[in-house]
Amino acid sequence: MPRIARGRSGTMAEPRSPIPVYAARYREADLSAFCEAALRAAGADAPTVDAATRAMMHASRLGVDSHGVRLLNHYVSALEGGRVARAPHLTYVRETGAVATLDAGAAHGALAAYTAMDRAMDLASGFGIGAVAIRNSSHFGPAGAFALAAAERGFVGLAFCNSDSFVRLHEGAERFHGTNPIAAAAPVRGARPWLFDMATSSVPFNRVLLYRSLDIPLPRDAASDAEGVDTQDANAVDMLAPLGGAFGFKGAGLAGLVEIFSALLSGALLSFDIAPMVGPDMATPRNIGAFVLAVRPSAFLEPEVYEEGMARYLRTLRRSRPTAGGEVLAPGDREWREADNRARMGIPVDPATAEAFAQLSLRYGLYLPETQSTAY
Amino acid sequence: MPRIARGRSGTMAEPRSPIPVYAARYREADLSAFCEAALRAAGADAPTVDAATRAMMHASRLGVDSHGVRLLNHYVSALEGGRVARAPHLTYVRETGAVATLDAGAAHGALAAYTAMDRAMDLASGFGIGAVAIRNSSHFGPAGAFALAAAERGFVGLAFCNSDSFVRLHEGAERFHGTNPIAAAAPVRGARPWLFDMATSSVPFNRVLLYRSLDIPLPRDAASDAEGVDTQDANAVDMLAPLGGAFGFKGAGLAGLVEIFSALLSGALLSFDIAPMVGPDMATPRNIGAFVLAVRPSAFLEPEVYEEGMARYLRTLRRSRPTAGGEVLAPGDREWREADNRARMGIPVDPATAEAFAQLSLRYGLYLPETQSTAY
Repeated sequence: MPRIARGRSGTMAEPRSPIPVYAARYREADLSAFCEAALRAAGADAPTVDAATRAMMHASRLGVDSHGVRLLNHYVSALEGGRVARAPHLTYVRETGAVATLDAGAAHGALAAYTAMDRAMDLASGFGIGAVAIRNSSHFGPAGAFALAAAERGFVGLAFCNSDSFVRLHEGAERFHGTNPIAAAAPVRGARPWLFDMATSSVPFNRVLLYRSLDIPLPRDAASDAEGVDTQDANAVDMLAPLGGAFGFKGAGLAGLVEIFSALLSGALLSFDIAPMVGPDMATPRNIGAFVLAVRPSAFLEPEVYEEGMARYLRTLRRSRPTAGGEVLAPGDREWREADNRARMGIPVDPATAEAFAQLSLRYGLYLPETQSTAY
Repeated sequence: MPRIARGRSGTMAEPRSPIPVYAARYREADLSAFCEAALRAAGADAPTVDAATRAMMHASRLGVDSHGVRLLNHYVSALEGGRVARAPHLTYVRETGAVATLDAGAAHGALAAYTAMDRAMDLASGFGIGAVAIRNSSHFGPAGAFALAAAERGFVGLAFCNSDSFVRLHEGAERFHGTNPIAAAAPVRGARPWLFDMATSSVPFNRVLLYRSLDIPLPRDAASDAEGVDTQDANAVDMLAPLGGAFGFKGAGLAGLVEIFSALLSGALLSFDIAPMVGPDMATPRNIGAFVLAVRPSAFLEPEVYEEGMARYLRTLRRSRPTAGGEVLAPGDREWREADNRARMGIPVDPATAEAFAQLSLRYGLYLPETQSTAY
């Protein structure tokens, strides 16, 4: 996965370039059309097809392949099994002042989150801030996609969600919280948004799986064995460690903050009650929770003061002195750079995903997207 | 400092018990009265005296001594020098919908933050959520004090602030962000609130100073030398590392999120423009920024659903299996436990602070608080 290939950590603790093997590259439009066709074939209604494809393509375009088109096959199974509603009814069960609670009716998580963020922005247009808690949702993919939707319209956006237990507590020896991501985005005049998207664990589990398949040691403080002791042996990993290493009470506390907003304020299930993402039961809705918030800068100060401040902040940040061999970037810079590469080179897809595409094309009689020569 | 004495990290990376040396212990009421008398003697008006004392006592009561009464002498100097206004005029420069922007007029940061959180709660009472951005403020002490003020009245509270540069960026080799804390608190029916207060650096600088004085190695990934390379030699430390170690892009991103809310939405100075906390100039206001947010759970769902969910979440968390020799706690548990100890044993004060008290009592003719026998 490019996040790893690009050696994001910049320390010796993390290998700088276990180059992932890609089966093929595709043009964005072709990949997007294939996702839409497969979701439609699985019975998804138009809003679900659009939202799920938009979220997957956000991740595949920006290089967050763990949450990109590799999820298509999973989403198709969830739609076919009934875990995710093909034609959901999304209902606001509470609407008061600048907030609302959305019952997503087992909708695809991306449809729920985009719908909620649209409402949060409408509320923020009037009240300066708007927030929507989401219950009865499902896996929403890349949290950054929904924060970005706000920034693209001039709002500072935040998106949280909980998920099935995979991360130990600080000094804990069993899975408790999900990877409970925090995503935020802020508009930048005349440039692409500041974009931040992190799991509150040190790494996502798919990174452990990658290191397993590559048979290389994990970074320190990333994952733990069945006793909750951190290990760099990917094969010994039983759970993920909260962000922070020796300061893991911070990562665990941030995961708890996400849990409070996503589940306790929405009425969704708590992480430890959520059915696993991959399991035999693809029929029962998972009732995952999420929370989105939009803030309108012009409600707090003159827009140009915000815009000039943000421009100067980012200019200064990008000029900040790097370590030897290091590179200082603002959140999102690496992803936007990768988006430029992929616009030119095409979007790479791993072998398992390419194989899943082939199966989907056989099952539904869909044309496979044309592969793009990397020389292109 | 008890945070260290209690070996919070629970790993071998951090020594479990460099026991701090205390000069004396005082009863809370006596300590509080001495702080009020000293601030009053320095010319602070009643609201400033009350807010600054309340914030310092929050920290000293809960064992966060870095932000407790050891700050009294600093605050007295700031009031005498004029950096902090003795009788500030706090003005709302913007008020729209569920948000407002407070110009604190160089008020003590605690007065600004408590004032803003009161307004945020009033707004959340009507709109379900309320937020106030703060400019022209000063050092506000323990961020958790202001989040707790919301939770004590039944709101979920968030508090952010920026501060002078002390923390490098990920792969950075110079000070950029402040320790930019994130604090959050949530009400728990019939119990003390869930309370989370973290710096977005791995450790506060005062912990580096403590390790220096104790001549013991720092935890890994806590601080860096002048080249931005992490070091465990407290004497070689030139800057702090962002939370996360190899995943420091997460700590740096969180610091940026705090900067956006505290400075870019408020119009306050950016971290790298803020004058150092300790320096020759105690006359010029620092224009630090902050941001507070209050959320009313009953706006999102039935209060008993929130209350029962929170109770079950915390019960399950506290029963989660610990590592061998470890202890699983919810955010705040350790602090509330320390508060119980201190209610019984008295609040400990380090030698430098005890000496400062003596100087203050001479300068202003104040009675020193009676020391409490630890046998008491």
